[in-house]
Amino acid sequence: MALIVHKYGGTSMGSTERIANVARRVAKWARAGHQMVVVPSAMSGETNRLLALAKELAPAGVPDAAYLREQDALAATGEQASSALLAIALQAIGQPAVSYTGWQVAVHTDSAYTKARIESIDAERVRADLAAGRVVIVTGFQGIDELGNITTLGRGGSDTSAVAMAAALGADECLIYTDVDGVYTTDPRIVPEARRLRTISFEEMLELASLGSKVLQIRSVEFAGKYRVPVRVLSSFTPWDIDITEEARSGTLITFEEDEKMEKELISGITPSREEAKIAVIGVPDKPGTAAQILGAVAAAGIEVDVVIQNVAKDGRTDFSFTVARGECERAVELLRQQVVPALGGNVEVASDKHICKVSIVGIGMRSHVGVASTMFRTLSEEGINIQMISTSEIKISVVIDEKYTELAVRALHKAFGLEQAGSSKKLA
Amino acid sequence: MALIVHKYGGTSMGSTERIANVARRVAKWARAGHQMVVVPSAMSGETNRLLALAKELAPAGVPDAAYLREQDALAATGEQASSALLAIALQAIGQPAVSYTGWQVAVHTDSAYTKARIESIDAERVRADLAAGRVVIVTGFQGIDELGNITTLGRGGSDTSAVAMAAALGADECLIYTDVDGVYTTDPRIVPEARRLRTISFEEMLELASLGSKVLQIRSVEFAGKYRVPVRVLSSFTPWDIDITEEARSGTLITFEEDEKMEKELISGITPSREEAKIAVIGVPDKPGTAAQILGAVAAAGIEVDVVIQNVAKDGRTDFSFTVARGECERAVELLRQQVVPALGGNVEVASDKHICKVSIVGIGMRSHVGVASTMFRTLSEEGINIQMISTSEIKISVVIDEKYTELAVRALHKAFGLEQAGSSKKLA
Repeated sequence: MALIVHKYGGTSMGSTERIANVARRVAKWARAGHQMVVVPSAMSGETNRLLALAKELAPAGVPDAAYLREQDALAATGEQASSALLAIALQAIGQPAVSYTGWQVAVHTDSAYTKARIESIDAERVRADLAAGRVVIVTGFQGIDELGNITTLGRGGSDTSAVAMAAALGADECLIYTDVDGVYTTDPRIVPEARRLRTISFEEMLELASLGSKVLQIRSVEFAGKYRVPVRVLSSFTPWDIDITEEARSGTLITFEEDEKMEKELISGITPSREEAKIAVIGVPDKPGTAAQILGAVAAAGIEVDVVIQNVAKDGRTDFSFTVARGECERAVELLRQQVVPALGGNVEVASDKHICKVSIVGIGMRSHVGVASTMFRTLSEEGINIQMISTSEIKISVVIDEKYTELAVRALHKAFGLEQAGSSKKLA
Repeated sequence: MALIVHKYGGTSMGSTERIANVARRVAKWARAGHQMVVVPSAMSGETNRLLALAKELAPAGVPDAAYLREQDALAATGEQASSALLAIALQAIGQPAVSYTGWQVAVHTDSAYTKARIESIDAERVRADLAAGRVVIVTGFQGIDELGNITTLGRGGSDTSAVAMAAALGADECLIYTDVDGVYTTDPRIVPEARRLRTISFEEMLELASLGSKVLQIRSVEFAGKYRVPVRVLSSFTPWDIDITEEARSGTLITFEEDEKMEKELISGITPSREEAKIAVIGVPDKPGTAAQILGAVAAAGIEVDVVIQNVAKDGRTDFSFTVARGECERAVELLRQQVVPALGGNVEVASDKHICKVSIVGIGMRSHVGVASTMFRTLSEEGINIQMISTSEIKISVVIDEKYTELAVRALHKAFGLEQAGSSKKLA
């Protein structure tokens, strides 16, 4: 008997028929003798429907915390409803169940409405229900701050709720049921030979999440790492009555056994991200403080900067480039032209390019193997793809290239690192 | 400056456009210097939508409190969402506002899911917000029990929430905005001359509510009486920018100044109710204990009995009749035939009739004036309407008649008591 947390996304909860299937799957686990905690998202479309109503009433929003507080109270109803519905679906098939909201459990967060962070969870009530043989359903995505205000954790926050709940309860495993059946070496729509990973290390998963992989919200991965919660990503679209032993081994498990992993794979995944734009500030003076002047202004406007490079100086002038989220591009350019360029003086220009792609390779094997970067650069070069920017971390290399080469680059790298076969990438080392 | 509670029904909150109008109306009151508390219902149709989802998952329901607990948690989301939306609408027009759920305020209730009763309200937080100049929105219809479970107060429960909140805050007046513009002498669809009452006594309102008038939930009237909260029923369909002095005097005010009232009106209203059925148990032995045997079995099945009569006995046998809610009729008849008739022995028969109407006249003037009953009976007799059953209280007379005479009876009585003109009914005394 184990204590298991299941998390179901909005698509899995998208209709009463699907909720009934989730109930059957959860009941199967409960009848196999496991103590079950379930964290559901709102029914798909519900959060958007609610926020659209708010937008009709306040088209421009209202620029203060009081408004965000109401938006959170509004959005939180979606998970409260889906949780109660799942409890009803379980009861209807004879499985005792009880649902709790974020404040009933209680999931304590800070007061950062729409992006609150979980601080602690009182799981006593949950333990009592589990001991009494009930399936316990806890609303994902939400909590309360210390004044008892309802907060939400941001898009994908239910992943974090589930992992945090698993951590608080010391669960044996946290199963994230979603619309993909695990983590792949790359996007199978680009590379048909892409292979599902049976395991991935926590650090690799963290890099993938921060690179824009939608599989897990990054904070849920951070939580998993902090509390060493075994997290498995698996499909909610297998038949609910699939053999439980087979189901328990499916998907991708996030592991913490780094040593064992390192011997197996050099590179775990290749991730293209088309969500950034490149901004170049051309002809800036090559002197201390210039970078701070540029990036400081951007940061002060709440715009996050990703890859940053500075060219070699020539005649006391240099070019300074960085990437931002594509949706923030115009605002950043405008800001630089109005606030920064006049202060830099001279012939400084600001240019931007939205047609870029950031392609990253991730693998903890990089730590102990040289030659990964050179293989990457050579592969791209052989395909005639120019690298515009490079950014590296201990277990990741990202390059910014022209967007039109995205698929070509991903396919070439997938082949070059031998990712289509399990364990094959180590041969490069 | 006064402390005013507004309550808006589901129709008034039925779309974002209507919510925006509610916000404008409330802001008008706040800008006139009043401290404002608003209790909104869920957007019309929302509660039904949510309960229909539950019904899809558990078509037969689940016969225990655990199920009703989930149904309440589900239904309560409707008011939480509409309350947050109203706060957003107020903020969008520059009026500071904050919304609270039943548990945040907190509205403490017993644990009778789907029909909980309010036990107490902690209004401290509300007072602090009012003092800070915020409109405070409190979700209607819901509360929490002592274990922190979400409860709901039953259909129309938002009326009770509003009056209870007004009582807890010592509000100067509680305005119930609804889709009728007040309490009428009778249903204007039956009698076009029906007149809106400017005031009605608390006791008359209580009788009207218990007789099936849909204007106010009966428990809200009980609350108003217990805490002497001045309650006004008025229309939410007047233009939001109607002159506030005119608006404050519109609708019908429930008063507690009985003496003054008594001199003015003999009868306040005539209420037809077509929601009951008559059951007759024919040929029962005329001996002590028979009535208890019959009604005891019905009560034990949770079926409420209204009007009860027993005929004069003949040859040691009598007939025993009573009314029940129309929807419970078959169940009551079946129960009597299976459990009671065999015990009574002999030639006892059970008959039922769904085609009846209970017509009631209500007026505190009855207390001090004789002749009201005889006027009623004579009026019906002159129209050739047979009275099947009679039931009286201190300020009410109800008669059960054939349903087909409903409109005829109501019109004749309205005329006989001179209800079309204010103050005219006293001339009968």
